[in-house]
Amino acid sequence: MNAFSDRLCNAIIEKKTPLVVGIDPVLDRLPPEMTADENLGMNAQAVAEMFLEFGRAIIEIAAPLVSAVKINSAYFERYHAPGVSAYRQLIKAARQAGLLVMGDVKRSDIGHTAVQYAIAQLADTHYVDSVENTGPDAITINAYLGSDGVKPFLETASAGGKGVFALVRTSNPSSVEIQELLLADGRPVYVQMAELVSRWGGTAGAYGYSDLGAVVGATTGHALAVVRAAAPRTIFLIPGIGAQGGSLADCLPAFDSRGLGAVIAASRSIIYAYRDAKYAELAESNWRRAVEQALIDHKTHIATMIKYEQTF
Amino acid sequence: MNAFSDRLCNAIIEKKTPLVVGIDPVLDRLPPEMTADENLGMNAQAVAEMFLEFGRAIIEIAAPLVSAVKINSAYFERYHAPGVSAYRQLIKAARQAGLLVMGDVKRSDIGHTAVQYAIAQLADTHYVDSVENTGPDAITINAYLGSDGVKPFLETASAGGKGVFALVRTSNPSSVEIQELLLADGRPVYVQMAELVSRWGGTAGAYGYSDLGAVVGATTGHALAVVRAAAPRTIFLIPGIGAQGGSLADCLPAFDSRGLGAVIAASRSIIYAYRDAKYAELAESNWRRAVEQALIDHKTHIATMIKYEQTF
Repeated sequence: MNAFSDRLCNAIIEKKTPLVVGIDPVLDRLPPEMTADENLGMNAQAVAEMFLEFGRAIIEIAAPLVSAVKINSAYFERYHAPGVSAYRQLIKAARQAGLLVMGDVKRSDIGHTAVQYAIAQLADTHYVDSVENTGPDAITINAYLGSDGVKPFLETASAGGKGVFALVRTSNPSSVEIQELLLADGRPVYVQMAELVSRWGGTAGAYGYSDLGAVVGATTGHALAVVRAAAPRTIFLIPGIGAQGGSLADCLPAFDSRGLGAVIAASRSIIYAYRDAKYAELAESNWRRAVEQALIDHKTHIATMIKYEQTF
Repeated sequence: MNAFSDRLCNAIIEKKTPLVVGIDPVLDRLPPEMTADENLGMNAQAVAEMFLEFGRAIIEIAAPLVSAVKINSAYFERYHAPGVSAYRQLIKAARQAGLLVMGDVKRSDIGHTAVQYAIAQLADTHYVDSVENTGPDAITINAYLGSDGVKPFLETASAGGKGVFALVRTSNPSSVEIQELLLADGRPVYVQMAELVSRWGGTAGAYGYSDLGAVVGATTGHALAVVRAAAPRTIFLIPGIGAQGGSLADCLPAFDSRGLGAVIAASRSIIYAYRDAKYAELAESNWRRAVEQALIDHKTHIATMIKYEQTF
């Protein structure tokens, strides 16, 4: 079984892009044709089914073009058990379509409790009464609790060729309140977190990266270069491109000369492209065409800066 | 509608104890009579039903004796959608039994995504196809992302008379790796987190406490006193008593002279008391008797140090 870092690097090279499509379904942003029933939001099961249908369409568009999708659990959990069921069915659909799946769950706990979350998300379970045994290839976690809150996730992940991304420097304005506090030695907290993540990650795979990655926001400018220096073997998951205002140029320090070392996640600017005036004409014929074009445009834009010319 | 802090203080005074019973069900620790079928673990729905049955028995025992239960979502999420359904049904059962419910979910995210988690957990929703619309009275969150990751939870909570507990200083050994890092001004990170939590909490209720509480471990000795000094109006949720090795004396600085200001959570040492040699005789007749006695013993022990003699 290949390590997660190697599987991800292989998929990036194959698709020639570090772009990852984020799936964050919100009822009132879905294509109008899917939400014609104005009482839909009162019915958790019906919304969950709609999210599944919408997500499957995104997956169909994304599968030939990118290496992975990032599915955000929060949007599904809002619809309770039916939502969780849709989340898991969507993971299965994405993996069956050949995509890697990152479960954006930002879980955090320690010891025995962390093991439960790790099994819930990262283990491919074998419940005989479920069609939803397939878990994501990697998840996001919050490492404020220290290594006791990381190792249970990483161990469960590694046992199944999967990975974990720990929050290091997030893309939101108030991330400075804790993450940029200066330590006695002059370094900010997030740099210490980056060094810990680098250390916890342990041995690297064939491409030189470990299975413990880091979430580092694109809106933070220099932070990406600083984290790269502190964590040379860590794969970055970079959110905040597009809707959140991060620029692609800021992301460059995250990448090595092979175009590896990071993935860039874009969600709203792709999956809701049919709501964007720029894609209005395409959307009129079929909302899926707008999403596909936005995905291609993102990929093309990234390709101006990050290239996969070399043979490996 | 009363604020969460006032509802919790009222309940503590009524039950004359800050003890909260944690419900963390694990299949192989359940009473043997409940797990006779050795294939039970292969069936997510069957395990979820068993957790619900077990949890309901704990609630029946706890309701006359304590103010609240803390239900740990991780143990339910391990069993996917059926587990999540059981978690929510158990919350409803506990609230119907007159208990306050803390959902131990340790969620973390920002902005729009945090709103989804907040609605998922804290909103009493109105899905017409669900019997599981009741959410917990409070949840735990991880505030490493700063106020962007706290305010959406707190706003949703406050709108429904509910509360939030942010991780400040956790009870695990490796919590020192981030939380005890010394800042340039000599304070540890967790003290800055405590001050932020205190500030974010805003106005206090009738008892002088805000609806944004703090998780502070009992295994950390002096940390409780330090956090109390930094956050005078913050209710502490103190785990780590019992199985994790925290001592009751260490908790005293968290409490005011009325016995308010903190709750003490004990899970395994109560709900699995029938596995403890000390309660073997009781357990032989009925496992519920062992749990009840362990709960009473915990309450009696706490009452030696924290008293509710005053009239309010």
